[in-house]
Amino acid sequence: MSTKDPIFIGVDLGGTNIEAAAVRNGEVLVSKKKKTRPEKGADSVIGRIEATVRRVFDKMDAASSDFEGLCIGAPGAVDPSTGIVRAAPNLDWKDVPLGEELQRRLGFPVFVDNDVNIGVVGEYVHGAGRGALDMVGIWVGTGIGGGIVVNGQLVKGFRGAAGEIGHVVVQPHGRRCGCGRQGCVEAYASKTAMMAMIEETIESGGESAVPEIMARKGKRRLTSSVVEAALEAGDPPMVEAVETAQFYLGLLTASLVNVLDPQIIVFGGGLVERLGEAFVAPVARTAAEYYLQQKNADRIRIVPSALGDDAGPVGAAVIASRRL
Amino acid sequence: MSTKDPIFIGVDLGGTNIEAAAVRNGEVLVSKKKKTRPEKGADSVIGRIEATVRRVFDKMDAASSDFEGLCIGAPGAVDPSTGIVRAAPNLDWKDVPLGEELQRRLGFPVFVDNDVNIGVVGEYVHGAGRGALDMVGIWVGTGIGGGIVVNGQLVKGFRGAAGEIGHVVVQPHGRRCGCGRQGCVEAYASKTAMMAMIEETIESGGESAVPEIMARKGKRRLTSSVVEAALEAGDPPMVEAVETAQFYLGLLTASLVNVLDPQIIVFGGGLVERLGEAFVAPVARTAAEYYLQQKNADRIRIVPSALGDDAGPVGAAVIASRRL
Repeated sequence: MSTKDPIFIGVDLGGTNIEAAAVRNGEVLVSKKKKTRPEKGADSVIGRIEATVRRVFDKMDAASSDFEGLCIGAPGAVDPSTGIVRAAPNLDWKDVPLGEELQRRLGFPVFVDNDVNIGVVGEYVHGAGRGALDMVGIWVGTGIGGGIVVNGQLVKGFRGAAGEIGHVVVQPHGRRCGCGRQGCVEAYASKTAMMAMIEETIESGGESAVPEIMARKGKRRLTSSVVEAALEAGDPPMVEAVETAQFYLGLLTASLVNVLDPQIIVFGGGLVERLGEAFVAPVARTAAEYYLQQKNADRIRIVPSALGDDAGPVGAAVIASRRL
Repeated sequence: MSTKDPIFIGVDLGGTNIEAAAVRNGEVLVSKKKKTRPEKGADSVIGRIEATVRRVFDKMDAASSDFEGLCIGAPGAVDPSTGIVRAAPNLDWKDVPLGEELQRRLGFPVFVDNDVNIGVVGEYVHGAGRGALDMVGIWVGTGIGGGIVVNGQLVKGFRGAAGEIGHVVVQPHGRRCGCGRQGCVEAYASKTAMMAMIEETIESGGESAVPEIMARKGKRRLTSSVVEAALEAGDPPMVEAVETAQFYLGLLTASLVNVLDPQIIVFGGGLVERLGEAFVAPVARTAAEYYLQQKNADRIRIVPSALGDDAGPVGAAVIASRRL
């Protein structure tokens, strides 16, 4: 690596936070965060993205012209060729020309991709997947997303729709999923599913500390910090919800190992960042019970993300450098 | 295609039949079949393979020197680099040096691969998958095997163990599978599973025509012809077993579509050859209920093998031509 290597801006746009970073060859030089505040509308969010990026510029005493370009990962269906965010339910966005708008404001090339894609690419190129030819990324958040790397390439699929691993069916005729179908892993292992399971416990007369913890923290959703606090308090419905999620993620992992035989399975997303190995280890144990114990099965690695929060911006920078 | 294109011999070694074919650029010029008779031992089987290949030579009025080489697909774990069949339970083989032995007898280069691999490659290059960049092959037989093509390449995996789609978990804590685990699709959708389900019906006092049909046909196992005859007779346990298999294969297909987004899913193997579209159509209907209905979902094709019996020999010839 040379200090003459170009610097790219990578941005991870989430439903809660915007993180922007200046990245040189996988190394985060400077990063800045802001709240997304999607309730204020797309224009406001784009303004906050611009402001976050400009704070990175300021910290580096730099300007747009010092950077080669930017890539931003958005949470939802994205058209990378036009930079339009087709649908991002967490932001309540439909057909937002994010790429064009940011490019106009910042004055350098802007690329748009999916938030899980950028995280998976970051982990693959500079994180836990470094050195592996085949990797599966499983991102646990409001939903369950993922990405698959085969022979060093992110699998895009025939329609560009590959990686929807949250909708692998793990329980026939099982829980209703946000997608409208039944029994998807997302209906058991996402934060949305965990919250639904806790609400069902409460509705049927059980007790849970989760609503109180949410109120205390001023959260309207089951955030990763709420999950952590409820687990620390030993809240039984939270413990059960997390164990349910881990069991089904273990089955998913085993099935993906049997189908794709990756060298490494990386778990990412906010919850995994916060709970780390404590979340992933039980998943890995269930997976090992369910995948075929043949040919060096003990060499398969199932690990949490190595880059944490930075996976997204780092991967976005990789994508920007490649698209230019 | 020119008549000067080289001719390869492709052989599909099954538990029941050996099929050998002379193949030029995907076209079967001559093919011959013999019974495998694995109970007579590996030496006898290798002799029968040689005899089948020599019948192809005779029919073409040709000799070894008229062919570039041979590839044979064996049912089990194979080491392609040494030509040794590590374990083939259907043949009761362990560590049989099939490649070396055939090469000594036939006097030209012999390559060994897995029987499902050769079928998937045949369908991909010259059959139903022709023209697609991404394909999933699902082979229904004594077990459930498969192969995945991404960006035109058969996915091998980190340990060369990819494609074990029979061991995708479709029912947590479900039926016991031959692999020792529970709830694998193979425990619901293979011919072995169908037979087990019918036996359970009989043991619990139900009636089935299957044992009688097997006796009449002189079969000790549930062969594809027995399944067909029992379906034609409207035998309720057989109908239910096939519907169960189709349901779980539909779930499997949906999950693989969501993960890999292939252009085409091809079903092969003896049962599919025999029942064709009648077997695959209900699988496709269940799959379409379970995969995400986004982005041109109606363009995904779920079809029976186009080459039938010839998929294996044709694919073996492709592999031979590539390895030389």
